[in-house]
Amino acid sequence: MTLKLADITRLLVDQVPAELVGNPDLLIDRLSTLQASGPNDLTFLSHPKYLGQLAQSAAGCVIVARSARDAAVRRGACIVVDDPYYYFALVTQLWKRLHAPPAVPAIHSSAVIDPAASIGRGVSIGAFACIAAGASIGEGVHIGAHCVIGANASIGAGSRLAARVTLADDCRIGERCIIHPGAVIGADGFGFAPHGGRWVKIEQLGAVQIGNDVEIGANTCIDRGALQDTVLEDGVKLDNLVQIGHNVRVGAHSAMAGCAGVAGSATIGAHCTVGGGAIVLGHLRLADHVHVSAASTVTRSLLKAGHYTGLFPIDDNAAWEKNAATLKQLHELRARLKHTEQSLRALQARGKEKNHDGHSPDSQAAAAPLPDPADRPGA
Amino acid sequence: MTLKLADITRLLVDQVPAELVGNPDLLIDRLSTLQASGPNDLTFLSHPKYLGQLAQSAAGCVIVARSARDAAVRRGACIVVDDPYYYFALVTQLWKRLHAPPAVPAIHSSAVIDPAASIGRGVSIGAFACIAAGASIGEGVHIGAHCVIGANASIGAGSRLAARVTLADDCRIGERCIIHPGAVIGADGFGFAPHGGRWVKIEQLGAVQIGNDVEIGANTCIDRGALQDTVLEDGVKLDNLVQIGHNVRVGAHSAMAGCAGVAGSATIGAHCTVGGGAIVLGHLRLADHVHVSAASTVTRSLLKAGHYTGLFPIDDNAAWEKNAATLKQLHELRARLKHTEQSLRALQARGKEKNHDGHSPDSQAAAAPLPDPADRPGA
Amino acid sequence: MTLKLADITRLLVDQVPAELVGNPDLLIDRLSTLQASGPNDLTFLSHPKYLGQLAQSAAGCVIVARSARDAAVRRGACIVVDDPYYYFALVTQLWKRLHAPPAVPAIHSSAVIDPAASIGRGVSIGAFACIAAGASIGEGVHIGAHCVIGANASIGAGSRLAARVTLADDCRIGERCIIHPGAVIGADGFGFAPHGGRWVKIEQLGAVQIGNDVEIGANTCIDRGALQDTVLEDGVKLDNLVQIGHNVRVGAHSAMAGCAGVAGSATIGAHCTVGGGAIVLGHLRLADHVHVSAASTVTRSLLKAGHYTGLFPIDDNAAWEKNAATLKQLHELRARLKHTEQSLRALQARGKEKNHDGHSPDSQAAAAPLPDPADRPGA
Repeated sequence: MTLKLADITRLLVDQVPAELVGNPDLLIDRLSTLQASGPNDLTFLSHPKYLGQLAQSAAGCVIVARSARDAAVRRGACIVVDDPYYYFALVTQLWKRLHAPPAVPAIHSSAVIDPAASIGRGVSIGAFACIAAGASIGEGVHIGAHCVIGANASIGAGSRLAARVTLADDCRIGERCIIHPGAVIGADGFGFAPHGGRWVKIEQLGAVQIGNDVEIGANTCIDRGALQDTVLEDGVKLDNLVQIGHNVRVGAHSAMAGCAGVAGSATIGAHCTVGGGAIVLGHLRLADHVHVSAASTVTRSLLKAGHYTGLFPIDDNAAWEKNAATLKQLHELRARLKHTEQSLRALQARGKEKNHDGHSPDSQAAAAPLPDPADRPGA
Repeated sequence: MTLKLADITRLLVDQVPAELVGNPDLLIDRLSTLQASGPNDLTFLSHPKYLGQLAQSAAGCVIVARSARDAAVRRGACIVVDDPYYYFALVTQLWKRLHAPPAVPAIHSSAVIDPAASIGRGVSIGAFACIAAGASIGEGVHIGAHCVIGANASIGAGSRLAARVTLADDCRIGERCIIHPGAVIGADGFGFAPHGGRWVKIEQLGAVQIGNDVEIGANTCIDRGALQDTVLEDGVKLDNLVQIGHNVRVGAHSAMAGCAGVAGSATIGAHCTVGGGAIVLGHLRLADHVHVSAASTVTRSLLKAGHYTGLFPIDDNAAWEKNAATLKQLHELRARLKHTEQSLRALQARGKEKNHDGHSPDSQAAAAPLPDPADRPGA
Repeated sequence: MTLKLADITRLLVDQVPAELVGNPDLLIDRLSTLQASGPNDLTFLSHPKYLGQLAQSAAGCVIVARSARDAAVRRGACIVVDDPYYYFALVTQLWKRLHAPPAVPAIHSSAVIDPAASIGRGVSIGAFACIAAGASIGEGVHIGAHCVIGANASIGAGSRLAARVTLADDCRIGERCIIHPGAVIGADGFGFAPHGGRWVKIEQLGAVQIGNDVEIGANTCIDRGALQDTVLEDGVKLDNLVQIGHNVRVGAHSAMAGCAGVAGSATIGAHCTVGGGAIVLGHLRLADHVHVSAASTVTRSLLKAGHYTGLFPIDDNAAWEKNAATLKQLHELRARLKHTEQSLRALQARGKEKNHDGHSPDSQAAAAPLPDPADRPGA
């Protein structure tokens, strides 16, 4: 399928006004990247640092910011908007809507739906899905093949569950959410009382509560709370294979990349980002707008917005081996440095006494007396 | 539903004797935390450090240790026991039993059960479950919807598999185990022989053997052994998204938090804990009672009980960048420090000679001669 | 079942010539390890470092390299080949083929197969599998129970999908691949445009393209591309719980261990290995033959073949605490060392002046003047 350039700007004009420069009848048959685009591809320039690639691009049309308008016009057709990346996102949504329209809602005959479940209008339910008693499925919800929806669970209007999603008893998903295959929402939290060398299970009596416009990646797990609910607020986005422990609260519009893990009872603010493979320990609190780098471990509460990192820099293995071995003596090295500084100060002081006695002066300005490390914070 | 305080202590008296102080007819309708509790909530005080919160709690009743009895009685009703956290765990189990009694055992008509499988008395089997020939399902086992049980697999009495659990051919689960959704038990271990630039598959001929009272989290994977079995001993608890490689043995009552990974042929002792996101490399051995912190990597055998950690401390990104860059020179810094110490000792020695010649004495006690770092372990 | 030694060498002779020393009629009833083997077990010696264990092994027969022939013959029966580990891999494949022959191809009556799907000859389809319109299933493919195959997806001849695999719309798997339970191929990549404090979804319009002879572990996720496809080339092996982000390309015969994660748009060369729990950040490039240690984070492109590592060495928790605390001052310690060196050089220079004036000479050879750290790279 193809779209004319003018159709694209027209169909999105209610969301974003845009200036189209070039032939409005140009046919677009693919969305692509700046480098890979051909004469019937539409692409975008999101960051000035790629400006150098713009002139070389063979794209039929490029979405650009006003600041790149002149350069873009010199190259060829362009769509000029305030925020090209956002506009491109809207184009992808338009593209998907037109190219892969959702199927006519239907409930597959093989699905097992308890008569005491409530199914809204326009709901799609795939093959072999199971929906238990008391579940409530909102208008226009799509439930993929093989999903298992527990008793008294609820799904808000317009949400889409891909195949093989598990939503356990009593858990609630808001509106317009997207849940990818294999996600498990509402398995038991990991709670045990140690007793006599064994682990005694603490039954997990809370549930999971998920806001609107949340997206949850494939095989990601959100545990139910021990006593109260685990909560994901509106607009949270979780990538694949993320683990959210029991009683965690993730604030609105926070996002976590793949393989991240948040241990039980942590509270993460709004508009945070957690990088791939990062771990947040239990019972900690992250303020709003905290950004944790990939593969970093949050071992203390981060009460100030900001960007935090903790990972060992990668290196040639041989260099790493030497530095890692030395790292295990680092505290001792610090003590040796302190001792060296003290000894040096003593020699300097002695030298000074001699100078007062008329001996030779310091030959270098750099040889200022060392400050006493005991005055330094953390020394 | 509600329970009288006296009912709770009565129903648990065979397991734990408890002293109830306060109105035995008080109705409890929720279990909750110390801070969130209201007048009909039961909560607990597990650690003396929360004693300060006790007086403020609006809870109907608090489970406390004998040491906190006086403070608790001053506040209101309490249940006095030896181990409040353990007692609370038992209360959650009682609560779940009474509030969500297991359904009457039934085998869903859609389940595909091979006639050559053996199904014990009182077994529940959910919709679309598949049970292959030779499988043996013990008395009172619950198999959730969409579970797939392989040929000759066995499940001991009283175990519960949630929805969408995969138990591969020949794998065995003990009694009273709990397996959460999406867990995969008995997929092939990751074994290949490199040959001519390609990986040649080593068929994984072992299976997985799981003891009694084991709990396995959502989407956790336990690989089958290459030649012998992968083994989880009694009482092991694994959180979500944990990876256990082939031939691993995990000792009794060890527990691992979410996203932990154990590479092939590692042997982990009994009563160990492995924190979230920690990695244990292959072929290593951990003694009993080894505790590995979250996000740490075990790169050598840990043959002594204890607490081990290895993670880069998180910091402001700017501070981290400076320290991480310096870390890559750490071995060189150590060499520079050593050289500095040697030079300083030389200056000190020269100074001493002069002193012997009648020159000015050391002006500070701190200026003791530096010890020779060559005498230090690890220098 | 048992096999005679002579049968084994005969059945593999077309793949590898081997010399059998010992009784060709010895019955082998198990494959095992060097230590655990008994008189009817076949095992192998892959590395000279285990040569010491050879003499003690009670194995019926040992597969050895020519260099270990003499030692092996002194012990008993052996099979002498160029590459014992490779030969053993072939024996495991033979063993599996003979002991667990694949079932007669059959399509379970409960599977939901769209009439517009194309199903090759000799295909097996398990219970409750779903195959959508336009899907193409090659000759001899095995699709396990509960698999979900999307519209226009394709699977090449001879590939085997275990139970509960999801292959999303338009994704393609080559020939002779093995996909383990719970794997999700083709879920949406994690792509959002930030706009006004919210995340706006970028529809993921690419797919996943997987070559021949690829193996994908349990619950591993391979995201579909944003605009172009995510690609795994021929012979790639991924362990369990691995995350591959959108637009990633993994070169031929590269392998990744459990819990590894590759962020979006990274390009990994051929013949690479990525250790368990390692993270590769987005948009990076790894050359061919790059080997990343377990639990390391790749934060920059690695354009040279080699072995790279970055992880904090594990230690007693108490020692770690001291070193980690000091690490946060490392940049400052480096500055202090530099200052100390400068001061010391000044003292040395003064001492020299005095020596020129006839004072006492340096008493130690070690007291060479410190080099200026400003001359050092990275100082």
